[in-house]
Amino acid sequence: MRVIAHRFPTTGPSDVSGLATQLDAGELRAQDILAIIGKTEGNGGLNDFTRELATRALGDLLAPQLGCAPAEIEDRVVLSFSGGTEGVTSPHLLVLARTGEPLTTPRAEKRLAVATGYTRAFEPWEVGYRPMIEETARVVRELMRELKIDDPADVHLAQIKGAIPDADEEQRAAAEAEGRPLRSDMVGSRAASALGVALALDEVAEDSIGDRVVCRDWSLYSTRASVSAKPGLLRSEITLLANSAWWDGDLVIEHGVMRDIIDLDAIRAVLARLGLEAPGQLAPEQTARLVGLFAKSDADPRNTIRGRRHTMWTDADISDMRYSRCVVAALLAGVTGETAVYVSTRAEHQGPLGGGPVAIIARAE
Amino acid sequence: MRVIAHRFPTTGPSDVSGLATQLDAGELRAQDILAIIGKTEGNGGLNDFTRELATRALGDLLAPQLGCAPAEIEDRVVLSFSGGTEGVTSPHLLVLARTGEPLTTPRAEKRLAVATGYTRAFEPWEVGYRPMIEETARVVRELMRELKIDDPADVHLAQIKGAIPDADEEQRAAAEAEGRPLRSDMVGSRAASALGVALALDEVAEDSIGDRVVCRDWSLYSTRASVSAKPGLLRSEITLLANSAWWDGDLVIEHGVMRDIIDLDAIRAVLARLGLEAPGQLAPEQTARLVGLFAKSDADPRNTIRGRRHTMWTDADISDMRYSRCVVAALLAGVTGETAVYVSTRAEHQGPLGGGPVAIIARAE
Amino acid sequence: MRVIAHRFPTTGPSDVSGLATQLDAGELRAQDILAIIGKTEGNGGLNDFTRELATRALGDLLAPQLGCAPAEIEDRVVLSFSGGTEGVTSPHLLVLARTGEPLTTPRAEKRLAVATGYTRAFEPWEVGYRPMIEETARVVRELMRELKIDDPADVHLAQIKGAIPDADEEQRAAAEAEGRPLRSDMVGSRAASALGVALALDEVAEDSIGDRVVCRDWSLYSTRASVSAKPGLLRSEITLLANSAWWDGDLVIEHGVMRDIIDLDAIRAVLARLGLEAPGQLAPEQTARLVGLFAKSDADPRNTIRGRRHTMWTDADISDMRYSRCVVAALLAGVTGETAVYVSTRAEHQGPLGGGPVAIIARAE
Amino acid sequence: MRVIAHRFPTTGPSDVSGLATQLDAGELRAQDILAIIGKTEGNGGLNDFTRELATRALGDLLAPQLGCAPAEIEDRVVLSFSGGTEGVTSPHLLVLARTGEPLTTPRAEKRLAVATGYTRAFEPWEVGYRPMIEETARVVRELMRELKIDDPADVHLAQIKGAIPDADEEQRAAAEAEGRPLRSDMVGSRAASALGVALALDEVAEDSIGDRVVCRDWSLYSTRASVSAKPGLLRSEITLLANSAWWDGDLVIEHGVMRDIIDLDAIRAVLARLGLEAPGQLAPEQTARLVGLFAKSDADPRNTIRGRRHTMWTDADISDMRYSRCVVAALLAGVTGETAVYVSTRAEHQGPLGGGPVAIIARAE
Repeated sequence: MRVIAHRFPTTGPSDVSGLATQLDAGELRAQDILAIIGKTEGNGGLNDFTRELATRALGDLLAPQLGCAPAEIEDRVVLSFSGGTEGVTSPHLLVLARTGEPLTTPRAEKRLAVATGYTRAFEPWEVGYRPMIEETARVVRELMRELKIDDPADVHLAQIKGAIPDADEEQRAAAEAEGRPLRSDMVGSRAASALGVALALDEVAEDSIGDRVVCRDWSLYSTRASVSAKPGLLRSEITLLANSAWWDGDLVIEHGVMRDIIDLDAIRAVLARLGLEAPGQLAPEQTARLVGLFAKSDADPRNTIRGRRHTMWTDADISDMRYSRCVVAALLAGVTGETAVYVSTRAEHQGPLGGGPVAIIARAE
Repeated sequence: MRVIAHRFPTTGPSDVSGLATQLDAGELRAQDILAIIGKTEGNGGLNDFTRELATRALGDLLAPQLGCAPAEIEDRVVLSFSGGTEGVTSPHLLVLARTGEPLTTPRAEKRLAVATGYTRAFEPWEVGYRPMIEETARVVRELMRELKIDDPADVHLAQIKGAIPDADEEQRAAAEAEGRPLRSDMVGSRAASALGVALALDEVAEDSIGDRVVCRDWSLYSTRASVSAKPGLLRSEITLLANSAWWDGDLVIEHGVMRDIIDLDAIRAVLARLGLEAPGQLAPEQTARLVGLFAKSDADPRNTIRGRRHTMWTDADISDMRYSRCVVAALLAGVTGETAVYVSTRAEHQGPLGGGPVAIIARAE
Repeated sequence: MRVIAHRFPTTGPSDVSGLATQLDAGELRAQDILAIIGKTEGNGGLNDFTRELATRALGDLLAPQLGCAPAEIEDRVVLSFSGGTEGVTSPHLLVLARTGEPLTTPRAEKRLAVATGYTRAFEPWEVGYRPMIEETARVVRELMRELKIDDPADVHLAQIKGAIPDADEEQRAAAEAEGRPLRSDMVGSRAASALGVALALDEVAEDSIGDRVVCRDWSLYSTRASVSAKPGLLRSEITLLANSAWWDGDLVIEHGVMRDIIDLDAIRAVLARLGLEAPGQLAPEQTARLVGLFAKSDADPRNTIRGRRHTMWTDADISDMRYSRCVVAALLAGVTGETAVYVSTRAEHQGPLGGGPVAIIARAE
Repeated sequence: MRVIAHRFPTTGPSDVSGLATQLDAGELRAQDILAIIGKTEGNGGLNDFTRELATRALGDLLAPQLGCAPAEIEDRVVLSFSGGTEGVTSPHLLVLARTGEPLTTPRAEKRLAVATGYTRAFEPWEVGYRPMIEETARVVRELMRELKIDDPADVHLAQIKGAIPDADEEQRAAAEAEGRPLRSDMVGSRAASALGVALALDEVAEDSIGDRVVCRDWSLYSTRASVSAKPGLLRSEITLLANSAWWDGDLVIEHGVMRDIIDLDAIRAVLARLGLEAPGQLAPEQTARLVGLFAKSDADPRNTIRGRRHTMWTDADISDMRYSRCVVAALLAGVTGETAVYVSTRAEHQGPLGGGPVAIIARAE
């Protein structure tokens, strides 16, 4: 059993030609595809329709081969698109597929293992609260077992699309009245999902978790959760990436955490763990080994970085989200020489306040 | 004779409190100030009034001490503000002053030397053409002599505010008719000024320069010109920064050129020449030695970086200028640990196409 | 023969549910659809993918019924989407269909007649020049004959998607060398197409038309051309709307021209010609008679309106296009009480400089 | 006693040349100036420094004549600048001055009367709550007495700059703990100030006012309050405009309320009360009688206008504030032919939800 990963640069949100060619060439089978993670060139906001366009294009391409309707594609393959290709970010798709038979005996060096799963559907009042934290943790643990991961340290990325079930005014009022206002929004969904990962990976103590710490106690966080949230989504979609001795192939993954968005050395540390050491930027042959680069970004809400003021929160013309994505993507590209990076923003409980996790997939030497 | 450099973080475009304190404390004399270079938190475009606000605030502060009217301040001190503090960029002012007596004998290690000068007033039809190139070169050479610089290699930054004399419709029509359309705009002023620096510093051959190469032959450029242009400005303002054996003090400057906006190693090379070597980000004590960081940025007009597509030119919501400044500032901050950086955009003939010059002032060990 | 027009509000660019319902109910046949004109909520710029998304959604809906591939939909139905629903503009689709048999005798009151056609494919060097003007005029005249229109005054709207064939560097250089630089861009395509309409409708004299007047002589314009342009489109798509005695039904169309973007009375004049008179805003029952509202907008390039300065061209954060669309849509909505309006921007030779055409379709009393 | 009103178009935020000329010509005395209300071409957000620049320019102009320091100007004259000249809005300053002796007997027709006043300084926990409502009402009533206004119906505009005293974390926590979270922000300050005006003008019943209705019960509002708020301002600044029989001159003011931002007839009704009737746009000679046009705008938070969806709240690139200002300014300009209008946004309790007050000053026939 091995993970096959293909990265395709795109000429636009609906460009699936790269994947189509691979499928036609038989180098990849639609049924083997577990997840497709991509950056599309929208604004990343509520009116960013590039994600829907990309989903539609992939549905039209894959549905016939999967024997489902294009609209059902998201039930067959986890699609995780992040809008916003600020600065040097190059739009692309990363296709993760699983192929081959399970190993009968563990191999010496661990290799990239990927599994996807779904939480149960959430009620609006569960989002942002303990129920979502625990259900998310449950699924993460389940996926670890599926991948035969005993040591949480082998998990390097939990890519999540968090649920945001719609709530009506009545539900909002009722929750308000109970002194337990609804958190069924982007912030609540991202925050609780991330804490769920932290719980499953023993990054936080069971008893430190509760409704009150969500978006309050920033000392609690996961270094491996990367969560975006989608209004209307009823259940969360989770893609777990880890290294396992029971998986074959030539891919490995490592992670680290940036303490702030100029923490260049955190990126270098991850590369070093992948055997990609370089004083400055990677050499071209090293860059060529990179398959996937993931990071979460945040404009420090305290309005300073290393004690100096930044203006990302006081700019009324450009969102802090676009700036922080642009900054972290620039750092990743500067250190690796690769601009096809996946940076998603707003990192509640994903890394320390003002910082965020970074994970990199590379081909083993 | 020595250069004193003070960098002041600002709480807004009109914040001159840091400088005021220094002046009150007698640590700096208004008369000694040669130039003030700063980043203000506007959009950097035509309707960015933060530069005017900063100029006004400095005029009100310095004019009484210089015995001139606030409105005359720009005739006494070169003020060079760049709007746009994208991403991690921290708004600040860098004050460059000259003090002390000329050395009678040259010293062993060269030190930072600064001189400012002005070109003659330009006619609209000279801007962007050979006359502006040559006049700019003349002033740069003049300033080199003033600083006792024989070797052009000792010049590391020519910070220029380029002239853009207004032209009326008649003049435009006449120039058009002559087949020599006016270039009295931002592009023409920046391009010709940069080529003037390249000419003075022997970066381009005398005979390679002509009207036709401007914004055509991108192989001709200066690695030390940093030019912005200001509509309505009649003469160009030039601040030359070099290392000279005839200057004292503890400051030195070095420069380099980024081949593209993710050329992180170009920045590291400049730091190395300053004795600031580090595998990744500078250590805090090294960062503390930095006084001024300057760079020009550009979103590669070929729409690719290292062969990968970027979307900076096709984004209808956010200008390429804001993106490229954000990217280069992020790289500078990532490598140095310092966010008070001066990055200005649109670098015609300032470094290669898609790249740009970088210069750093630091305290000598 | 009659025109059926249905307007569907949309919940997003891919929402075709309204049309789907009508088709299912058999109230409309896919084969009868001539054109679909809509406003989608993108930015209206190069990276506005809402138009592609809407096209894709309509292709998936209509192709099966038309017996073609979804990708071929644009060869069967003229799709004209304008991105940008600034201000009060409400996203919507207007479907224009033709049904019934030709009348054997003309009727007393003329009724809305619609025909669509295509120019031949253009070469890059024809766009923005006389060849495009004449070919566009030829097709408009052809469509008039098809609709049995003898009097150009009966034509009230020529909705055009202008061609912009791609050109390579060689072609650009060659054209430059000939002193006939390529105009194969948005501006050239819109301008020449509009002049073509003006020529066909006798709004400009044959001999006043030439390569030199394009984007030069603004006194030459059409009051009925509404042109947008699409990079990569090889032939222009034209939808002609007129009133004809040979067409039946309950719809009529009238037009007028706004002399500037606050010319409210121009809108009222059009309504009056439709029998919709009101001192201020239309009464609800009058509003209910409106079926389609079309206008072109422009931020006056002279930077003033009625002698007063505006700042639409000096705003570095928001495009003049978004402002002018927002303004004209607000006026249309204010006068009619209807926010589902179609305002498209940049109106070269479409109405006078700083103004633009307005056309309204309503149900006859 | 009479009000003199001068409107000056500006070439930029610091352009005070028009006023300077009047002062030099002796047509106006600095000491007589009560308030200066203006639109400046910034973004209207936190990083809009055009208001500060305009204030600074006016301080430099007026301080010498008032015998105070430029920085003290805001204690002598009420300065109310609104950033954001979207669409057709033309940047300008409206100077309101008072001159002459009090009348000994009331005159037949009432004339414009203006008075300015200040509330006491507010504590952070008072803002957005009853104390601010009542103190605002107290000052409004005080100003009415000062102007000899017995009938609240004679008050047509209460232009307010609302206080927003800074609060520290401790205060925030304490207030939170008390279940009375701080509202010392833009929203709270605008809302409570508007309700204060409503209370003083008998637009709401004394007993209907309380902490709970603020930003909850939208049926409570003033049709004459126009409030903006300024972070750091300790006391609110109030300029009351009314018609009084005890005031002389040739100016009158009337007001109305737009039920939504396309309510064109509400504007026409105000004009009619000023004797400016016209079926559509005012005739030039009528337009010439206009001196000041004021309105508040809001993008309906219910995401619809007249039952149709708008996208002002889901646009991640452009703020709803810029859109709603653009729309209302366009309507005002369309109906009056005047683009020098003052439209400010976010109208909590200023007119009905999704609508806002409009007030117009004109010269009497």
